[in-house]
Amino acid sequence: MRTVGIVVEYNPLHNGHLYHIQQSRKITGAEAVVAVMSGHFLQRGEPAIADKWARAEMALRAGCDLVLELPVAYSAQPAQWFAHGAVAVLEATGVVDALCFGSESGDLATLARIADRLVREPEALKRRLAELLKEGRPYPTAYADAVRELLAAEGDAAGAAFGLDQPNHTLGLHYLLALRRLGSRIVPASIRREKSEYGQTSITDQAIASATALRKLIGEADGALDGLAPYVPASTLEILLREAAAGRAPLTWEHFARPLFHQLHALSPEALAAFAEVTEGLEHRIRASLRGLAAWRVEALLDALKTKRYTRTKLQRTLLRTLLGHGKAELTAERLADGVRYVRVLGFTERGQGLLRRMKRAASVPVLHSAAGGNWPFLDLDVRASAVYAAAFPVPDPNAAWRDYTLPPVRI
Amino acid sequence: MRTVGIVVEYNPLHNGHLYHIQQSRKITGAEAVVAVMSGHFLQRGEPAIADKWARAEMALRAGCDLVLELPVAYSAQPAQWFAHGAVAVLEATGVVDALCFGSESGDLATLARIADRLVREPEALKRRLAELLKEGRPYPTAYADAVRELLAAEGDAAGAAFGLDQPNHTLGLHYLLALRRLGSRIVPASIRREKSEYGQTSITDQAIASATALRKLIGEADGALDGLAPYVPASTLEILLREAAAGRAPLTWEHFARPLFHQLHALSPEALAAFAEVTEGLEHRIRASLRGLAAWRVEALLDALKTKRYTRTKLQRTLLRTLLGHGKAELTAERLADGVRYVRVLGFTERGQGLLRRMKRAASVPVLHSAAGGNWPFLDLDVRASAVYAAAFPVPDPNAAWRDYTLPPVRI
Repeated sequence: MRTVGIVVEYNPLHNGHLYHIQQSRKITGAEAVVAVMSGHFLQRGEPAIADKWARAEMALRAGCDLVLELPVAYSAQPAQWFAHGAVAVLEATGVVDALCFGSESGDLATLARIADRLVREPEALKRRLAELLKEGRPYPTAYADAVRELLAAEGDAAGAAFGLDQPNHTLGLHYLLALRRLGSRIVPASIRREKSEYGQTSITDQAIASATALRKLIGEADGALDGLAPYVPASTLEILLREAAAGRAPLTWEHFARPLFHQLHALSPEALAAFAEVTEGLEHRIRASLRGLAAWRVEALLDALKTKRYTRTKLQRTLLRTLLGHGKAELTAERLADGVRYVRVLGFTERGQGLLRRMKRAASVPVLHSAAGGNWPFLDLDVRASAVYAAAFPVPDPNAAWRDYTLPPVRI
Repeated sequence: MRTVGIVVEYNPLHNGHLYHIQQSRKITGAEAVVAVMSGHFLQRGEPAIADKWARAEMALRAGCDLVLELPVAYSAQPAQWFAHGAVAVLEATGVVDALCFGSESGDLATLARIADRLVREPEALKRRLAELLKEGRPYPTAYADAVRELLAAEGDAAGAAFGLDQPNHTLGLHYLLALRRLGSRIVPASIRREKSEYGQTSITDQAIASATALRKLIGEADGALDGLAPYVPASTLEILLREAAAGRAPLTWEHFARPLFHQLHALSPEALAAFAEVTEGLEHRIRASLRGLAAWRVEALLDALKTKRYTRTKLQRTLLRTLLGHGKAELTAERLADGVRYVRVLGFTERGQGLLRRMKRAASVPVLHSAAGGNWPFLDLDVRASAVYAAAFPVPDPNAAWRDYTLPPVRI
């Protein structure tokens, strides 16, 4: 059974994602689709709109066969670690043949050439990156610029012109690097993004809108979900409405304002600095920003913290690691580079069950159906994150805090 | 101007406290009364019913002339450090002549003899204390028993029979020890507690009831305060009613449940163990207890945590330090033994103003009228504690979070 892997957040799953699933199957000739999905907290340092089981169900009803959790250790990270974690999960299954990702250009050949050049981390690149960071440039821009300069200097004009500052190009590059570093036999494939750019906030098409635009739509409608109907599969809307009725969705950063501000009020700058992503004295900047706020709103704090150097994404990730209590010592580069020690199943179809049967022999790590099945540091981060997430539900639910231990994978 | 110091919590100030103020003045022949008052968090590891400015006003209107804050570093501590901090504040003013405290027996002579025996910490006592603790006895009982055995062995029958397990005897002993250790010239005096025992929960008298009984009364009346009228001065009731109307009182532990549970959910056992009072693997016991709770109620968690060894007070202090983010490194024995580096004024009368004028020359440390006036680690703990307290108000108030910097002392 030829199987394609995809890396997703589904926040929420919309028609563009549906197209991605269908195209992934088509261009790789796969029968089965394995999605590695971020759990409760996402790459840009944001909470998911609905919990991971609800979003796994969206995935299954949209055509995925098996949904595996990307541990929060990787899910709320810059492209490098996000991609490394996601590819490591797919690789660990032992059953994935291809990895299909979206790309602004769809030009996989150029991306592969760049990845080949960068896989051994050229010293010149590291030096130039350090220089650009020192100038106060944000990391993603500095990285893209350093690569561009390197390729231009080496006469690779097409590579230099490739536009690595586009988010899907960056992710794609890191998927390729991760495949090479993990010595994976998974074959990459890419789909040109159609209709809507990543992160685009306006809706320019009648059927396809970015997840960002959809969340904006929900925000403007004061949490009402009906406006999503033209842009998401019926199953997504149905699941979101059910979750909202149960008091578990839609969630935004503001639902986490009270516990976040508690952490920031209570802890010493030294304790804040022990959390992952709290770097370069940001703990002092946070402390100073708190006193000027007239309301405990995350949006207001982000505005107060923003500088040219710190992107919104970096700041959101910083606040997220603080909220989640994720210590630097728990998220070292060594542990992250180590890859995954287990694979966590969030949901599967009948075809997915077939994959799971094959994984009993093929997987290189234990395959868990709940957190009760294992005891690893990264798993503990997910369990703690779920408890924090449940406390922020529109109708907070103590009984939902430890569902990682009790809730079986979603089956459709 | 002869001045007597008293150590108070006023949670809330009641008729028994009024009697204590009046008697303190009378038996020491003092004109002025200086109260060292715990800020927002109290000795038994509980939040105060109303904020420190409201309680300072209660104190002034009941006859105190100057109210100084006992830093939270000391206020939420076992008797030894609580007493050490309070006496250090009084001593640092340079204007206090006497210290007058309540005592179950009023027998100052015996207490003084015991203090003389213990001031150099006899080795035999330390050894026996360690043994009793190892047997699993709670600290206060173990300490009282070890002292009793020591005195009995040395033929001091009256000392051995003295009843050091009574809370005011314990506190009194530690006041005397602190006076000796600080080389203070402040003269101790004691008043026999009348009418109501410390911590007694039933009301046995028409005019005097313990603060514990009064808080129970408020709890049973679902936060209504009118039932307090027979037991508190009119000014206390007036202040409490005003604070309640403003959404700032009455507070209980349950008002802190959400941020407390957030801390306990989010942080790793290692991070929990870095907080003061989280000792002997309590972090693991807490983690394990969380999963069994059907509701985020502090009371339920305390019940789940309770053992013979861990008293309710010890557990409350543990949860409090966790809530407040007070690190072990911030509250070392060395720092505590060091005494106070500043004195913080919460309120004063006209007579108190006279004391403050004298303190300009007499005080051994800076005298602060707000937190804006200084920068010390223990002051930072108080500022952070106030922000946590304001977030727990019945009507949480972001603008109240940093009043330590902006609110001047109460003047009447």
